[in-house]
Amino acid sequence: MRVGIVGGGQLGRMLGLAAVPLNVATVFLDPAEDACARVVGEQLIGEFSDPSALDRLAASCDVLTYEFENVDVAELQRIAVNTTVRPSVRAVEVSQQRHREKAFFEGLGLDVAPWAYAESSADLDGALATTGLPAILKTDRLGYDGKGQVRITEASQAAAAFERLGGVPICVEGVVPFDFEVSVIGSRGIDASTEVYALTENRHRDGILWQSRTVADQARLADVARQAFLATTAALDYVGTLAIEFFVVGERLLVNEFAPRVHNSGHWTLDGAVTSQFENHMRAVAGLPLGSARLLGSAGMQNFIGNVPPTAEILADPAVRLHAYGKQARNGRKVGHANVVADSAAQRDSSLETLANVTSRYETRTL
Amino acid sequence: MRVGIVGGGQLGRMLGLAAVPLNVATVFLDPAEDACARVVGEQLIGEFSDPSALDRLAASCDVLTYEFENVDVAELQRIAVNTTVRPSVRAVEVSQQRHREKAFFEGLGLDVAPWAYAESSADLDGALATTGLPAILKTDRLGYDGKGQVRITEASQAAAAFERLGGVPICVEGVVPFDFEVSVIGSRGIDASTEVYALTENRHRDGILWQSRTVADQARLADVARQAFLATTAALDYVGTLAIEFFVVGERLLVNEFAPRVHNSGHWTLDGAVTSQFENHMRAVAGLPLGSARLLGSAGMQNFIGNVPPTAEILADPAVRLHAYGKQARNGRKVGHANVVADSAAQRDSSLETLANVTSRYETRTL
Repeated sequence: MRVGIVGGGQLGRMLGLAAVPLNVATVFLDPAEDACARVVGEQLIGEFSDPSALDRLAASCDVLTYEFENVDVAELQRIAVNTTVRPSVRAVEVSQQRHREKAFFEGLGLDVAPWAYAESSADLDGALATTGLPAILKTDRLGYDGKGQVRITEASQAAAAFERLGGVPICVEGVVPFDFEVSVIGSRGIDASTEVYALTENRHRDGILWQSRTVADQARLADVARQAFLATTAALDYVGTLAIEFFVVGERLLVNEFAPRVHNSGHWTLDGAVTSQFENHMRAVAGLPLGSARLLGSAGMQNFIGNVPPTAEILADPAVRLHAYGKQARNGRKVGHANVVADSAAQRDSSLETLANVTSRYETRTL
Repeated sequence: MRVGIVGGGQLGRMLGLAAVPLNVATVFLDPAEDACARVVGEQLIGEFSDPSALDRLAASCDVLTYEFENVDVAELQRIAVNTTVRPSVRAVEVSQQRHREKAFFEGLGLDVAPWAYAESSADLDGALATTGLPAILKTDRLGYDGKGQVRITEASQAAAAFERLGGVPICVEGVVPFDFEVSVIGSRGIDASTEVYALTENRHRDGILWQSRTVADQARLADVARQAFLATTAALDYVGTLAIEFFVVGERLLVNEFAPRVHNSGHWTLDGAVTSQFENHMRAVAGLPLGSARLLGSAGMQNFIGNVPPTAEILADPAVRLHAYGKQARNGRKVGHANVVADSAAQRDSSLETLANVTSRYETRTL
C-alpha cells in the first residue's frame, strides 16, 4: 500500500512517520526541495496545483490524501476520477469557503456565531447589520493562522478593511465573547466506524495556536463536540482525520471552522492517546481498521514558533517529548512542538508552564 | 547531531524512527542492500567488521552506537579512539562471552544459575560436576534466539553436544526449574541519570521470544531487577538502553544474560510507556536528558515470526498497534510485532490471546 500526500510539511512528515510501522509507504508532492517530510518517504518536487505533478503523484500511489485543505478542487476532482482520494473532495470544497462551511454547519443544526457573506463592498452594511459590532472580516478563501482577517469596531472601518483584504469576497463574523476555545479531533474509517479524541482546549497567541490541553471535566461539552464530529463526517461521507474548532460560550458550543485533515490541536495525540491522529488518518485512508483514541493521561502540547529551543532545555522535564519538524528557523513559522503526558492535570499544567517559559525565550515572530 | 548505528535491521529502524522527531539524523552500516532501517536514515553498505566501512561510518557521525552486540571488539576499540562510542566497548566485550558475563554478574553480587566454562572436551566432566544435570551447553560466543545451544540430560551426551557446537569454548549452564522469565529494560544517560521500565514477563517458543507483558503485581521482584540494572550500568559506566533477562525461581531472580542495546522484550515501550526504549537510547547516546519510563497502562507485545499476518486482522482490535519491520517474509525471521496497551491486565491479556491466535495462523518457522 502506497499513499500519496499533497504537501510535504510537518503534517506530511508526521503522517509519514506513522505510516512506516504499518508498512504503508508514502510519497509526497511538494515544491520545496527541502520539504521536511522527505526524510520518511519519497518526494516528488512540483507545485500542488500543477496537473502533471498531481498526475505523477496519482500514478505513484494507491490512495491520494492531502495535508492541507487549500488544494485545487477542480484538479482534485479530475484526479478522483481514476484515483481514490480520501477524504472526499467535497470535504475540501466545503472547507475552502467560509460561507459554505457556515451554511453547512447550520444545515446540520449546529450553532455558529453570527455571520454574513459579502461579495462586494456594497454588501458590507447589510452584513454588519446581521453580525453586529465588533466584527471580524475574513477572506472567504485561503485564510490560516490569523492571516487574511481584519477586526473592526465601527462600521466606518469596514470599507477600508475590505480593501485591505484585497477586495475579494469575505465572510463577516460577529465577535463572540467566548470563554475559551476548544476543538474535537476524530477519525472515520471506510466502514463508517469512528474514533473521537478527548476534547481539547486551545490557547492562541497572535492568531497562532500556542498551547492545547485535554479537557477531562466537561462531559457535556465533550458530548456536543462529539455529536458535531459524527454529524459532520457522516454528512461528508468522510474518511480520515478531521478537526472542528468551537467557541465555548457559557454552556453553548459555537462552531468556528473545520479542517479536513490532521490538525495542530491534535498533535498531543502522538503521546497522549493509544493511537495518534496521524496514524488513524493513515489507517483510514489505507482502508485499515482505526485504532483506539483512548486518552492515556492528562495531555498537552506547546507549539514552537520561529525557533526550536535547545533540545536539552525542552527535555529537561522527563514527561516532555519533542516533535521537531526539521525545518529551517524562520520568523513566525511553526517549527516543532512538545507534548506532555502526565498522571494529573496539575502536573500537565506545570509542565506546560515550564515549556511556555522556555518557548518564550527562544521564539521569533513578527508581532 | 548525527548518530551512526552499526546494523540496519528492525532495531536500527525503530531507533531511527525515534530519532526523527528529535532532529537527530541517523546513518546505518549494514551489508544488506534492502536493510529495513534505510527508510528512516542514510545507509552505508558494508560489512559490520570491515575496518574501512566502520571508518566511513565513524567519519559520518558525531556518536557511534550499535543495534546488536556481536560487533568486532577490536575494531570498536580502534574506532573509539577518535569517535565517541556509546554504550562503552566494555559492555560489548563482557556481553560477548557468556563466562565473562556470568562472572561479571557474580562480581556484582547478583545470583546466577550454576554454570561452568569449558574450553575443551577435557573440561566437560568438571563442568557438569558444577552444574548438575540436565544442563544446557551454549557456545561461549555468538548465540541468539536459542541458536548455538544443546540441552543434555546425561553426562554421556556431553562430548557429542560439544562437537555439535563446533568444538569451540562453551558455557555449561545448569537447568533451573524456573517459574517464569522476566527482563528489566532501562536507560542511563551521560549524567548517570536512569529511567527503568516496568518489569516484563517473557514467553518464548522454540527459543524465540513470543510474547512480553508488563508485570504490575511483583513489587519485590521489580525492585531486585531494578537494583540489578543500576549495578550493571554503573559498573559498565553505561550510556544507552540495556536489558537484563532473569529466571524467576520462587522468590529469587537469577540473572540469565544481558544485552547492551535495545531489546525485543522492551518493544512494548513504544506504546506502553511515556518514552520508548528506542527514544531513550537515542537520547542517551546523543547526550540528551532521558524521558520518563512511566507505564501508561497494562502493556504487552506479540512477535510475528516468518510472516506478518494481514494488517486488517492484526488491527481488528482497536487497542492494538502494529510495528512491521518492512522485511521480506522468511521462515523463522522476526518480521514485526504488535503492541497492546489496555486499562487492565485482563483486557491486555485478552488482546494478546487474540493476537496469539492470529499469529499462529500465519507464522512460519522450522520446528
